[in-house]
Amino acid sequence: MTKQYLVDQIIAKQSYLCVGLDTDIEKLPAGIPKTKQGVIAFNKAIIDATAPYCVSYKVNTAFYESQGIAGWEAMEETLAHIPSTHFTIADAKRGDIGNTSSQYAKTFFEVLPFDAITVAPYMGKDSIDPFLAYQNKWTIVLGLTSNPGSQNFEQQKLANGQFLFESVLEQVSSWASAEQLMFVVGATKAADLAAIRKIIPEHFLLVPGVGAQGGSLEDVTKYGKNNDIGLLVNASRAVIFASSGNDFAEAAAIAAKGYANDMKILLENK
Amino acid sequence: MTKQYLVDQIIAKQSYLCVGLDTDIEKLPAGIPKTKQGVIAFNKAIIDATAPYCVSYKVNTAFYESQGIAGWEAMEETLAHIPSTHFTIADAKRGDIGNTSSQYAKTFFEVLPFDAITVAPYMGKDSIDPFLAYQNKWTIVLGLTSNPGSQNFEQQKLANGQFLFESVLEQVSSWASAEQLMFVVGATKAADLAAIRKIIPEHFLLVPGVGAQGGSLEDVTKYGKNNDIGLLVNASRAVIFASSGNDFAEAAAIAAKGYANDMKILLENK
Repeated sequence: MTKQYLVDQIIAKQSYLCVGLDTDIEKLPAGIPKTKQGVIAFNKAIIDATAPYCVSYKVNTAFYESQGIAGWEAMEETLAHIPSTHFTIADAKRGDIGNTSSQYAKTFFEVLPFDAITVAPYMGKDSIDPFLAYQNKWTIVLGLTSNPGSQNFEQQKLANGQFLFESVLEQVSSWASAEQLMFVVGATKAADLAAIRKIIPEHFLLVPGVGAQGGSLEDVTKYGKNNDIGLLVNASRAVIFASSGNDFAEAAAIAAKGYANDMKILLENK
Repeated sequence: MTKQYLVDQIIAKQSYLCVGLDTDIEKLPAGIPKTKQGVIAFNKAIIDATAPYCVSYKVNTAFYESQGIAGWEAMEETLAHIPSTHFTIADAKRGDIGNTSSQYAKTFFEVLPFDAITVAPYMGKDSIDPFLAYQNKWTIVLGLTSNPGSQNFEQQKLANGQFLFESVLEQVSSWASAEQLMFVVGATKAADLAAIRKIIPEHFLLVPGVGAQGGSLEDVTKYGKNNDIGLLVNASRAVIFASSGNDFAEAAAIAAKGYANDMKILLENK
């Protein structure tokens, strides 16, 4: 998917919502079997219910891998059910030396034809380049995450005065354009978004942590938006597990619509 | 596997060789079909041929994931074929927020019952803790890798005077004992090993980069060995693709035996 197409979708819908399919088989609603078919049926119902209100789906690969082969099959069927209008992200956080990252790129760009994959930056440029070699695909590199552990390394101060995550944003953004590269920036650090936008004014930000993790959509939009809007705000559990009853799909639609309505108001206010 | 058992195996064999099953389906020898069954047959032959000379096998998950479900099945059958005397590593380089890392831990400690998994440290403590929660399993955290990109972030100087990788070694080693935690330290940086051993004297080091990537086994042993020997030196392509002919298993055995002989001499010299 091109950046222009994604931006057009966002503008048409006035939504920059990404729904995270972190489908924990143990949390499936009553009445949905805790099987591969149950996961697939649940995801399809969630997708059908929420597609009008979001522009993207993020599949958290861990929740599928932990079911082994059945999980891999569920991931395939889930991806195949997502409308081509929606930007698809494999939230896989891969990254290894070049010949290995090439295999991961093949996995999530070809075998499973996602539009994008999340990638960890620790091992540096040659661990990220194989993903960037796909011109028609997107690489989403971890910048600043929203978990407490971000203080251990991401927020360590470097000798040059930058935080580590700032060095990641600065260096990695010099390796590829905003046409194929995005960054993960956690929403619980909305106050940092203004500083982040000075480093990477053009790149899209994938913002987890709104909803169950407690970030503020208003702050994220205020400090993170750029001329292309430039935001994908993810909500996972707050949407897909909005209800644990038979009305789970309806509840997910209501939750997604709620985010979309808030986004529309925030976009109109500017 | 306990640390004592692993150390006993190393001492009994006078080998600290780990064979890396980076089984690139495109590089299978002539005569081996480029299919799931081909990968399994190749791996089984390699394992049978090299088991006397090594104490560990490292399965690079990327090369299996890139074959989709068939690759996952090949990984399962390969793992099942490794003798229980050998320490098994899923080289998966995972790491995410806590509830997601828990799923990855389940994947590689339960669904696929490896002894160990490699983990990326960027997201900090709560991304690593779910792996450490398995008392009878091992977490192998990336410290200093052997690729050129290690200069981008791992070798950046922090404000406190440490390199980032030194801060990783120091912080992470305070989170778990040498009974369940190891570190990846690249062999092309053997000169750094003495400094690394001052930070983490007790933990095992998994050392890739000997062989195809060009590190020196002598330097690694000289600077990296501790009282438990404390080293697993990995060779992948240099062993498994030692020959592209019908004699691939025999050639792999010769290559593995060569490493083991060198290791024996280096251990005796001390």
